[in-house]
Amino acid sequence: MLLAEWRKLKLPIADETVIVAVSGGADSTGLLLALDELRSAHKLAVNLCVAHFDHGLRESSRKDARWVAELAEKLGYECVVGHSKVAEIALENADNLEQAARDARYKFLERTAKRKSANYVLTGHTMDDQAETVLLRLMRGSAGAGLGGMELLRPLGKNSGIKLVRPLLWARRSETENYCRLRKTEFLRDEMNADESFARVKVRQQLLPLMQSFNNKIVEALSRTASQLREDAAVLLNDSDALLKRAAVLDHVGDETRTPVLDVKVLAAAPPALRRRALRQWISEARGSSRRLEMVHLLAVENLLEGTAGGRVVELPGGSRVRRKRNRLEFETA
Amino acid sequence: MLLAEWRKLKLPIADETVIVAVSGGADSTGLLLALDELRSAHKLAVNLCVAHFDHGLRESSRKDARWVAELAEKLGYECVVGHSKVAEIALENADNLEQAARDARYKFLERTAKRKSANYVLTGHTMDDQAETVLLRLMRGSAGAGLGGMELLRPLGKNSGIKLVRPLLWARRSETENYCRLRKTEFLRDEMNADESFARVKVRQQLLPLMQSFNNKIVEALSRTASQLREDAAVLLNDSDALLKRAAVLDHVGDETRTPVLDVKVLAAAPPALRRRALRQWISEARGSSRRLEMVHLLAVENLLEGTAGGRVVELPGGSRVRRKRNRLEFETA
Repeated sequence: MLLAEWRKLKLPIADETVIVAVSGGADSTGLLLALDELRSAHKLAVNLCVAHFDHGLRESSRKDARWVAELAEKLGYECVVGHSKVAEIALENADNLEQAARDARYKFLERTAKRKSANYVLTGHTMDDQAETVLLRLMRGSAGAGLGGMELLRPLGKNSGIKLVRPLLWARRSETENYCRLRKTEFLRDEMNADESFARVKVRQQLLPLMQSFNNKIVEALSRTASQLREDAAVLLNDSDALLKRAAVLDHVGDETRTPVLDVKVLAAAPPALRRRALRQWISEARGSSRRLEMVHLLAVENLLEGTAGGRVVELPGGSRVRRKRNRLEFETA
Repeated sequence: MLLAEWRKLKLPIADETVIVAVSGGADSTGLLLALDELRSAHKLAVNLCVAHFDHGLRESSRKDARWVAELAEKLGYECVVGHSKVAEIALENADNLEQAARDARYKFLERTAKRKSANYVLTGHTMDDQAETVLLRLMRGSAGAGLGGMELLRPLGKNSGIKLVRPLLWARRSETENYCRLRKTEFLRDEMNADESFARVKVRQQLLPLMQSFNNKIVEALSRTASQLREDAAVLLNDSDALLKRAAVLDHVGDETRTPVLDVKVLAAAPPALRRRALRQWISEARGSSRRLEMVHLLAVENLLEGTAGGRVVELPGGSRVRRKRNRLEFETA
């Protein structure tokens, strides 16, 4: 199964190093063991480099890092361990702890991949993680794009040439546990998995079991739905790209560095689903990110399209503005 | 709010009869009272005809029907009551009870609308019903189209000229209860609302409260997501329509009564999201319905598109078949 997925994703078969992100849990440990098995069977000849990030959030985290390093050594692979004091970063930035931990981990993985000249970073996310992600996003009010969940393959960071790959999204978490047992290899159990103050843990321990009482195959159903919504999103993105090009006012095109001015009539005549996506993309590109851009802002910009009166302005987070001038929509940087 | 929605939906303001489907619950009773208030304030001059369907599933159902008839009389509106023995129908057809009840109710509403020369049947579905519908469909494995939930306005039945309208989807159920109290009017409480063997009741009493502990505005979030997914679905349907027209083999076009033969190459080159929708539509039109058509059948037909070998066949429920002949896909009726 992993090899079939590997081929479908067109991942390298030989002559390259790939980074395997290993937390020590059953999923990432299982991924490492499965890749090791494919190498032993001469079906894969890529070099594996294990990367473990010690978030420094728990007493036991240094012990976990040592455990992963020892596993890698036993299997004969190099292991890079990164350290962070995420809790301090988070307090300083008054930021969300999970988000800060994730940002620090991704930066470490990107650094490690660059140092090892690797093009791919693999994680052990399973179908269960996908189902949890879909439910978390559904409850946060995500629509089409977000409900598609995690991608199988995407750039690791913005403008990054390194790809983040999740080659185990077809597998259930229990399968990775069974596989570890079959390979007679221990795995770590994250103590935070018992802490229901984390929304994801509560989804795992309360919400999914309740939904399972409606549909025994709920994880599979959510994962399949997510995959279809990702396919839908690809078509809609393509359509909204085309709309954005059509809406760009011609006498302003040419200077690639400038944000194009948009034709209100073209946008107003487009289907709402495409108009909203096109506006989001236009604003995100102009601002350099979609950070803190909420649905209320998009709805306010959409409101600018109504009627014929110019001179109206929508303020965006960070100080930039969208201004309606007669039949045009202009972006003004902060 | 109801008047604003009424205008947005372009419903008739005068000189017409509209059917109001009233179960006697807070939502449909609230809808009737609100329409009555708009008539009293001379903001609406449509004739109202109350329609109540007695499913005959409970001891008290005749009493409920009398209660609705009396409410209509007190307000000065005509009331049509339909009766059915759904339980018997369901046993005969070995069908799903809820589905059978729904089918019988819709047939009664269609009959009543025709007799009264009404073009619209209104129901009191609220935002809470919408959220429940979205979750039920999510758990059944629906993707994009189904997750859009209930439409604000759609044909009552297949090929029906009568429209089913849900003008209260913007309101919370609790608002309809409060409004009934404000108007000093009782409403019925369905005993089945306490029966958790009905999936919808369990969603209402267990799943939504748990999800609310993640997001206090979960009903609003699900309803907004559904509405965006409906907008997405409209674009995707439009695109897949265009694909289906492009894929129809030219020398078979012209005879409108025949199911067109499809060009495999055109379909194979299309994005999966559109291909699957186009195939579903093609098969549904050819079979006359999408009944019992499951994702497995669509995937099997999609498989026919791969490779170059003809002579392969997929059997569909009911005995019809899709056959791959060289570079063509043909539909064969049962």
